[in-house]
Amino acid sequence: MLFVIKVGGNVIDNPALLQSFLEDFAAIKGPKILIHGGGKIATRIGDQLGIESNYVNGRRITDAATIDVVTMVYGGLVNKQLVAKLQAVGCNAIGMTGADANVIPAVKRPVKEIDYGFVGDINTANLNVGPLKAMLDAGLTPVFAPLTHDTHGQMLNTNADTIASSLAIALSAHYEVRLIYCFEKKGVLRDAQDDNAVINLINRSIYAELLEQKVLTDGILPKLENAFSAIESGVKEVLIGHAADVRSNTTGTVAGTLIC
Amino acid sequence: MLFVIKVGGNVIDNPALLQSFLEDFAAIKGPKILIHGGGKIATRIGDQLGIESNYVNGRRITDAATIDVVTMVYGGLVNKQLVAKLQAVGCNAIGMTGADANVIPAVKRPVKEIDYGFVGDINTANLNVGPLKAMLDAGLTPVFAPLTHDTHGQMLNTNADTIASSLAIALSAHYEVRLIYCFEKKGVLRDAQDDNAVINLINRSIYAELLEQKVLTDGILPKLENAFSAIESGVKEVLIGHAADVRSNTTGTVAGTLIC
Repeated sequence: MLFVIKVGGNVIDNPALLQSFLEDFAAIKGPKILIHGGGKIATRIGDQLGIESNYVNGRRITDAATIDVVTMVYGGLVNKQLVAKLQAVGCNAIGMTGADANVIPAVKRPVKEIDYGFVGDINTANLNVGPLKAMLDAGLTPVFAPLTHDTHGQMLNTNADTIASSLAIALSAHYEVRLIYCFEKKGVLRDAQDDNAVINLINRSIYAELLEQKVLTDGILPKLENAFSAIESGVKEVLIGHAADVRSNTTGTVAGTLIC
Repeated sequence: MLFVIKVGGNVIDNPALLQSFLEDFAAIKGPKILIHGGGKIATRIGDQLGIESNYVNGRRITDAATIDVVTMVYGGLVNKQLVAKLQAVGCNAIGMTGADANVIPAVKRPVKEIDYGFVGDINTANLNVGPLKAMLDAGLTPVFAPLTHDTHGQMLNTNADTIASSLAIALSAHYEVRLIYCFEKKGVLRDAQDDNAVINLINRSIYAELLEQKVLTDGILPKLENAFSAIESGVKEVLIGHAADVRSNTTGTVAGTLIC
């Protein structure tokens, strides 16, 4: 079983939760890949550099100055700090972006109503997972920043959830893959005000009901879409759960929400 | 023959020279590794973030704020831009720091008269070149930022020339290695005012004479010390030359200064 685990920005922003998550992650037996979000630090550093953050429909617009900031902060500061911290707890991590070894070639998002700027869209069929297989076979743990490239010299900003599901799908040709989204909630909640109202299982028909009942928060919808897309493209299992539950979600009892 | 090639900050800062260097580098046949300096951009971004650069004896003092800046800028922005640009010209680059795959464990420099801060010293015997050999065998080209780690979770700033010579030495157990320092001069100059006064060959006795004649600039001395250290530790050849001469320095006639 290969574990493809995404850890969200809110975990990155919480030093104590991050440290215990990294220790739990390091203790997972067998092959594993980590994909990290960015956290608030890119916005903070962008602000300090006088670069305004622009959002449309909750998505960051990545202009030329912003792609440099996210390349620095996600690809450099956050990624290397995670690698160094994982090395310190016995996990032989290797930092990656989609440009490295050309694992994730992407296409700059075409401009329709909105110009998202330097944002990369992924065609899962184009991923080059050979280098990742070789790393995993050698006992290395790839750690991905949420960045891709256009193969013509330009780095691109790509959603970490999407990178996680794309890697999980592409690697499912070679492994049984469990894709786990770790964030700061115990799973998908039936009631956003009640942190314990975890929905244990969601399939397409339950999802349709939940949408109709309008009980899901906006933030969880793309995660669920990514999850269904992964399941329908060969990934064995998808879990959405708390970063603090990553050990149980890679060993025994599932905590959180199972997507099937 | 394995080429271990260091490209200096002045080349990184010159877009036209950098682009033609990367095209030449990509065209080199066989296994190769690139190590890059930082360039002025870390200082510029540090200034914009309100972080002062401190130097003692020409060496940057790396305080906590500065190690974050160099990790971002060298490990993120510069490294990933080089990787993306190399991918665009057909070189399957993979960005690395010494923390990644624990290739270069280092020790924070002990405080004597000066506290250099988060600067890493390397013991060449401790390098883990296995992952690099696997990458080279798979046709990948590792591209190193001038960063190491202390194996306890802290990134460290390490001179790019030293990383280059250390990698060259450690890899000389497995390959015939030519170490090439590329910068914006045609080689080691007998007269700093005359760009064509290249010294074609330097050995220890010539070096002693040059030191006595006081014709060498301060900047070249650590490069030459690294070069001699490399030669005496198993590296077959060391060259110091212009970035624009990298093709001839990996194929036919040597341009620049040969150290032996």
